[in-house]
Amino acid sequence: MRLGVVFGGQSYEHEVSIISAIALSKVFKSEDVAYIFCDKDRKFYLIDPKNMVASYFKDGAYKTGGIGFGKPKDLHISNGGFYLNGMFSKDKFPVDVYINLIHGCDGEDGKMASLFDFFGIKYIGPRIEASVLSYNKILTKNLAALAGVKTINYAIVKKNSLATFKYPLILKPARLGSSIGIGIVNNSHELDIAMDKAFDLDDTAIVEPYVANIKEYNLAGCKIDGKFIYSNIEEPVKKDYLDFDQKYMDFSRTGKIEPAAVGQSVQDNMKEAFHKIYNTGGFDGALIRCDFFVINNEVYLNEINPCPGSMANYLFDNFTEVIKKLANSIELPKEIPVSYDLIDKLMDIK
Amino acid sequence: MRLGVVFGGQSYEHEVSIISAIALSKVFKSEDVAYIFCDKDRKFYLIDPKNMVASYFKDGAYKTGGIGFGKPKDLHISNGGFYLNGMFSKDKFPVDVYINLIHGCDGEDGKMASLFDFFGIKYIGPRIEASVLSYNKILTKNLAALAGVKTINYAIVKKNSLATFKYPLILKPARLGSSIGIGIVNNSHELDIAMDKAFDLDDTAIVEPYVANIKEYNLAGCKIDGKFIYSNIEEPVKKDYLDFDQKYMDFSRTGKIEPAAVGQSVQDNMKEAFHKIYNTGGFDGALIRCDFFVINNEVYLNEINPCPGSMANYLFDNFTEVIKKLANSIELPKEIPVSYDLIDKLMDIK
Repeated sequence: MRLGVVFGGQSYEHEVSIISAIALSKVFKSEDVAYIFCDKDRKFYLIDPKNMVASYFKDGAYKTGGIGFGKPKDLHISNGGFYLNGMFSKDKFPVDVYINLIHGCDGEDGKMASLFDFFGIKYIGPRIEASVLSYNKILTKNLAALAGVKTINYAIVKKNSLATFKYPLILKPARLGSSIGIGIVNNSHELDIAMDKAFDLDDTAIVEPYVANIKEYNLAGCKIDGKFIYSNIEEPVKKDYLDFDQKYMDFSRTGKIEPAAVGQSVQDNMKEAFHKIYNTGGFDGALIRCDFFVINNEVYLNEINPCPGSMANYLFDNFTEVIKKLANSIELPKEIPVSYDLIDKLMDIK
Repeated sequence: MRLGVVFGGQSYEHEVSIISAIALSKVFKSEDVAYIFCDKDRKFYLIDPKNMVASYFKDGAYKTGGIGFGKPKDLHISNGGFYLNGMFSKDKFPVDVYINLIHGCDGEDGKMASLFDFFGIKYIGPRIEASVLSYNKILTKNLAALAGVKTINYAIVKKNSLATFKYPLILKPARLGSSIGIGIVNNSHELDIAMDKAFDLDDTAIVEPYVANIKEYNLAGCKIDGKFIYSNIEEPVKKDYLDFDQKYMDFSRTGKIEPAAVGQSVQDNMKEAFHKIYNTGGFDGALIRCDFFVINNEVYLNEINPCPGSMANYLFDNFTEVIKKLANSIELPKEIPVSYDLIDKLMDIK
């Protein structure tokens, strides 16, 4: 069983994905894992594990090569997997299951899932529908409602829409992850600024009431052969609000966490909510992280990270083992039988 | 401006898509249009317009060639477009805008949209999110609710779920188009049979009350440079319920319709509902058909066809002109600026 990690992408989270993949390469250091980089032009490159350092990507050595780096190896994706480019190479690059580690656009919006599904490639990551539903915060709210999981009240805001709100509030662009464009807003002047920023990124945003000192917990997990495996629960360190820089640091994490001090019933409620979200369909095959708020012992879904930073490795006691088991359980979608019965009928009619 | 029609796919609607493309090739007979077939193994082939006949696909001549057919031409999709396979061909096949005419799975579930978006190819068709939302009947209900458009009441049914219903009802698998697996159910015995059939196709279904002689109308349209263009409105001929065979015949239509006799206010309401659905986001660039029910002059959305059969050409007075205008208006998504600011920061920290 050989794993491949696909990272990068044409996205605001391009560099976050690089950091995330470098972190994973440290976690997988004794494993035979392939690293495939998708650059900002959406060309794929095979990366030697020894080149998994930030400068290699930042300086473009992945496509130019250089002293000590070796020749760049570009790949293309096609039926069944990735293939090395070049006149004489028709061989599929030998990987059994890929990990979709492209964060944000390209990775979490359904594109990578679609490429893998279309080309019949096994992968760890959310399927198309689950990607789309967890990428858009409004659809995530609907998904949670369908699953019977609570979320914080919210309102949808469109460009130029007029509405009055109670302050303080949090404004979030509907479709970006990693806290990009998210800000706490204390008055109408700050709202104007926050809306300008948000509407640069998306045409729709949501507002939620800002609750100071709200308890937040992160729980990751996956379903393997019908059975759920959960990570430890972490209470993330935060200042006022997790901003991009802070969250970003999370992507480079490889150490283990101190499990949060949470009562058993709240833990159980979080796991139940996770289970309900995951089972809505489309998460099978993914290792996801759900971020929850807890208010008066009640659990609220904040967001779903369908491709969590560094795969939330730091939340698990036995991450590599979980990933391998999950990879082993992945199956390709059943082939749909194609028939020509109705064409025959139509041809008879003519 | 050269158009390309992509059809076929790994789907229950594979042959429906072939018929649909053949119909379009008749509509486009005096235009320079390229036809690209995606076979059941998801390999692409360039099809000479003179070979756009059902037997060419049914008998596999598209990949073997044969007397009078010429040599098969296989293609692959990559950055910027489709490319002819072969050692010496690195040239992109010259098409400006593709029409996504893959119905059902692959075409309407977000996969083709993802491929086009990922590889930076212009296309007519729903974007990823809109594909996913119109492919799943439960998500379509939510979308309509968000847009302020009414739909028929419904209940979600899962495999082995116990529930009692009022008969007659209609059972629909959540995720298939073209009426596949949809049946009228008059009693609990018929429900068992219908559920067996539906759960062969999907793990979730919905039930709606069956309303005999309900008025149904179809309206297609698109938005070009911010302005909506609507087709004529048709009242489809139906027996008890549109079954697959009947609907199938629709895919081969090229003649013009007799516009339905509908009062102006109902027409206006349908157009308003269409406008609201289309504007939820993600339909920009698509020509879609909405199927409505009208009950006591009130308009209810039945379903969204994001890649309608033969592009609903028969509903338009000036179809080719509309398609060309739409194609001209398509823009590639803005490139997201990729930065390495945070990598720099992290590298400083280390």
